[in-house]
Parts: sequence; structure tokens; C-alpha cells
Amino acid sequence: MTSLSDTNLYHEIHEQPDALRRLLDKEEATALALADLIHGRDIDHVVIAARGTSDNAGRYAQYVLGAMNGLSVGLAAPSLFSIYRRPPRFGNALVLGISQSGKSPDIVSVLAEARHQGALTAALTNRPASPLADQADVVIDLQAGDEHAVAATKTYTAELAAIALISVALSGATGPREALLALPQAVADTLSMNETVAAIAPRYRYMQRCVVVGRGYNYATAFETALKLKEMTYTIVEPYSSADFLHGPLAMIESGFPVIVIAPSGVMAAEMTDFARTLRERQAEVVAITDADDLLALARVPLALPAPVPEWLSPITAILPGQLLAMHLAHARDYDIDSPRGIHKVTETH
Amino acid sequence: MTSLSDTNLYHEIHEQPDALRRLLDKEEATALALADLIHGRDIDHVVIAARGTSDNAGRYAQYVLGAMNGLSVGLAAPSLFSIYRRPPRFGNALVLGISQSGKSPDIVSVLAEARHQGALTAALTNRPASPLADQADVVIDLQAGDEHAVAATKTYTAELAAIALISVALSGATGPREALLALPQAVADTLSMNETVAAIAPRYRYMQRCVVVGRGYNYATAFETALKLKEMTYTIVEPYSSADFLHGPLAMIESGFPVIVIAPSGVMAAEMTDFARTLRERQAEVVAITDADDLLALARVPLALPAPVPEWLSPITAILPGQLLAMHLAHARDYDIDSPRGIHKVTETH
Repeated sequence: MTSLSDTNLYHEIHEQPDALRRLLDKEEATALALADLIHGRDIDHVVIAARGTSDNAGRYAQYVLGAMNGLSVGLAAPSLFSIYRRPPRFGNALVLGISQSGKSPDIVSVLAEARHQGALTAALTNRPASPLADQADVVIDLQAGDEHAVAATKTYTAELAAIALISVALSGATGPREALLALPQAVADTLSMNETVAAIAPRYRYMQRCVVVGRGYNYATAFETALKLKEMTYTIVEPYSSADFLHGPLAMIESGFPVIVIAPSGVMAAEMTDFARTLRERQAEVVAITDADDLLALARVPLALPAPVPEWLSPITAILPGQLLAMHLAHARDYDIDSPRGIHKVTETH
Repeated sequence: MTSLSDTNLYHEIHEQPDALRRLLDKEEATALALADLIHGRDIDHVVIAARGTSDNAGRYAQYVLGAMNGLSVGLAAPSLFSIYRRPPRFGNALVLGISQSGKSPDIVSVLAEARHQGALTAALTNRPASPLADQADVVIDLQAGDEHAVAATKTYTAELAAIALISVALSGATGPREALLALPQAVADTLSMNETVAAIAPRYRYMQRCVVVGRGYNYATAFETALKLKEMTYTIVEPYSSADFLHGPLAMIESGFPVIVIAPSGVMAAEMTDFARTLRERQAEVVAITDADDLLALARVPLALPAPVPEWLSPITAILPGQLLAMHLAHARDYDIDSPRGIHKVTETH
């Protein structure tokens, strides 16, 4: 069996600070050009087309571009384009495709239709020569370098950072720009959690099901943490917003039920701490990913984020313990780290 | 223990044909008035605010209003309004709130902000005197009558039918209108599945986890079926689009893994039959809810829909076996049918 530190996934997780530095260094001018087009056309809503990990980046965009830039962001229903062939009108929207490979036919079909309708199109992709990029007026290259592990890690954080770069380009705000430029160091600091996460992973060796909860900016982080755990450890893991969870699924919680709560400090933290208290009352096992002391104190397994960042950027650090947990848990179960069973790097859904 | 047929849930499930007849009879004029406002203002996109079961009705609206009426539909992020207090601009959108009780503060906050911005607002609610209705320019009363069981059933199908009514009012198409008016009878015919579903439910007495898959119009049905099973049977049940499922979660499937595939006949059926074949190759246990013979033939447990309807209306019949399964499985497990543990009828999330 290969040593864990020799796997592609291990390397790609640890390459994230460098990948983000490249992106922020090389793609700011493109983000500014896109911002000029958005302002010039007086665009007030955005439609995002994406699948899997990239769809989770779309969830982040809904909050960042909404809260920081006042844009209404919706996620497209690709099958309206690819299967039903009854595309809605985009009107004066920006249509943004997000795909590591730039190859998924259903995502390409959304951008092709948008271009046909005369809407502004943009792509975030790690393959600037790809069918998706061909349909985009503006292409932001994720600059993540080749990603060999099937589970996407560095391309996900690059997608989030590209969205943050667009947000900063739109607002022109200097404080957020500086916080974004400081992010690669915070990512490097957060990766020091590797040993802590490796130490707790075996506790979940026989876990069969679990729930991951986040809200607001970190709704995306809950989805992406759940997806990594599912693809790599074959556990049933369901992501939720805490608000949706209280509308029904709370009924599932019984003593010892594992719930990963992701809530970096910020506006949402008080809400999430209340939520964790509700879970405690039902004897759930709470794993907390946060830098907020009162939430850490409530957790059975506290995973303290060592490098606090502004809440709007926190999804880029708060996903790292989830990536590490998926990797170490797959390792504890002797599963293939780089090629989980049954899935491929590029999934061509129609 | 109360007999199953004496529970509120049993009655409310079986009241659905009558509830739908009332809605279609009494609310068409209001739907036409809303359609006039949408046309008059040249609205081309819709933002929906909803939680839980009503959010699943929002998923249906995305496909129906998109495919039949060319409207881009997105789901709002309520916490941008209620927690972050950084609402995006709605521009020239219709903002539609969906809530059985009309009381959830975060959903009300989205409509209040929309009205403040001068956007057109509408509400679908079973409580026409409610905080949500107070913020709406147009209120469609679901006409479902009091719903006492905690798990929503008749208000869900009423929400779907109200959306279909809006779609027909917008298009003015007579064929779809006639199909919609015939729907209560198809719902009554489909409820004849009660005995079949009661007979298979005990097979899943000790099922701990399961996946529900639908795509296109029935993406909503997968989510709502999963939600009913979660709230009533405390099983971990995760809904997916077949396309998203192939992007990673397919790795979870092992021999005997239960997957409920919801695919009434129509444009999407071929895609879903291919998907079911992939599941069979991995020895999953496929439960099929469909009227398509080739998909029924692939299933370990075929649940044949007895009353075919046009695909765009099929979510209103295809949810019924899921409601029945949740009820009968809860009964097989001796759980409380009307008041699942830990949840309440009205959940006031902020």
C-alpha cells in the first residue's frame, strides 16, 4: 500500500496555498475585465451552471455576490437545456459556467444557449482550452495545475477564490482585496490541522452515516465536506443548512448521531452555536469546525481553525479540515485515496 | 395504538383529490390576475423563498415555469435577508414566497425586502391571513383545509398544483389547462396504490439508509420523497438528481443498497432507465416509481403508477407512493404517524 503522503490527493491538498497564489497573481486582470462588462451592461442577476464540486462553488457565489455585490444569484437547471431543450430566457443575466474540466455536456449546453440569446457568458475552469471555455466571453483560468486525484480539492478552493476575486473586482473595495491576497497564508496555516485530523479520523472508522451542517457563506462548505466524505469513504453523508434541518430532518437525530457543524466566527456563528446546543440536548456527537470558542466548547470533537479570516472568505479555509478528514478516514478504512471505486475524474452528464 | 386509517396523516393523504379540486376551482382567477401582472411588467425571472416541503415545491417551479413559460427561476438564500441583512437587488423579478403556515420569519423577510424594493410579490400559502400573505401583492390560497399531521402532504400537492395553475395562466394554453383540470381524478386513481405500498413497506423495516433519485420535473419529487421518509421514519435518506449522483456519490453504492428511482414516462425516462441499469450493474436494490414498462422491468420492487399524466404534471401523482411509503414504513416501525419525534408543524427559522 502506498504511503498516504505519496498520494496525489495528499499533494494536491497541500499544494493549495501555491495554487491560490498563482490564481490571485495571474487572474486579477481578467476578473477586472469581467467586472467592467457586468457594470457596463448594468447586470443585476447571475445564473450559474455547474455540477458536483463546482456546484458547491456556485452555492458560495450565491452568498458572496449577493451580500458583497447585491447580485441575485440562481443555480440553473441544466436538464432544461440538455434534455428538455426548453431553455428559459436569460434576459440581462450573467451566465457563469463552473467546471474543472470544462467538458460536462450539460453545463456547456447552458452556456451555448446563453451565448445564442446574447447574454454575457463567463467560465471558471482549470482547462482554458475546453468546450466550456469556447462558449464564454470571459474565461478565468483556475491556475490550479493538473489535478490527478479523482476527488477535487485544489480546483475547489481555486473556484472559490476566483469568485472572491470577481467580487472584489466588482466592488473595488480595498479591505476585502487585501484580505483575499492574505488568504494563501491562512490556507497554509490551516493545513497544520493535518495531524489533528489524522488523529481523530479512526474514531469514525465504522461510522455509517452522518450529517454536515453549515449556513450562509458556509452552506457551500457543508455540501463540499459531505461530497468529499461520500466519494472517498462511501459513507452516507447529508449536508444541510441548519434552518432546513430544523424543518423536519432533526427527527433523525438520536444519541451518538454524528453531526459535523461548520461555523467559523462571524455573523452566522451565534445561530450555529444555538443549533449545536439543540444537537447536544439530543445527545448527538458534535464535531465542530470553527475558530469560535463557545462552539468549540460545545463539541465532543472540536476542530479549531487556527487562522481566522473574514467570514466571507472563511469557506476557503473551513473546507480544509473536511478534505483532510475525508482523506484520513479513507486511509483508516484502507480505501483507495486517489481513485475511489466507481467514479471518474470527468463525468460527462447530459 | 390508533389504527392507521384513523390518523390525521392517512386522512390528509386521501383528501388530496378533493383539496386539489377546491384549489383549481377557486384560485384560477387569482392565478390569471398574477399572470397579467407578470406579463404587464415584462418579468423574465423569478426568485422563490421557501423552506422544507415548500422548498421542494420551489424546485418544481424552476422546471415548470422554465420549460413551459421561459422564466428563469432561482431559489433565494433567505439568510442574506434575515441574518446577514445584505439583501441582493431583485431588479425586475417576481418574488414568490411559498409557506403552508405563512409564518417562517426568514421567508417573510425576503418578501418584505422585495416589496420594499418595489418588486412584484406573490405568496402561496394555506393561511391567507398570515405575515407572509401581508407582504404579497397577490395571494393564492392553497385551499387545502387544516393540516394537522406534522408531515405536510396535501399542502405540498396543493403548492405544486398552484404553480401549475400559474403556468397555465401565463401561457393561456388550453391543452395543459385541461390536463391540469383532470389531475384530481389521476390523483384519486394513484391513491389506489395504498395497498401495494402497505404490502412492501415491511421489507424496509430495518433499512438504515437509502437514496432517492429523480431528475428534471421530478427532481422535486426525489427531494420531497426523501424528506417524508426522513421526518417520519428517521432513516438517513438522501435525494439526488441522477446527474449529480454520477458526479461522486455513485461511489457509495454496494450490493443491496436501496435506491428509489422516480421516473414517470416522458422526455426524462430514457435517461433514468439508463441510470437504473447502472445501479443494477452494481447490485443496488432498485425501487422504481414509474409507469414506464422498461424501468419497471429493471426494478427489484416495481411500484407502477396506474394513472399516466403529462410529464410536467407527473410530480403531483409521483409523490403519492412516497407519501404512502413514509406512512406505512413509520407504521411498520411503530412510530407516531401524526407527530414524529422532535419536530413541530410550524418551524420559525430566522
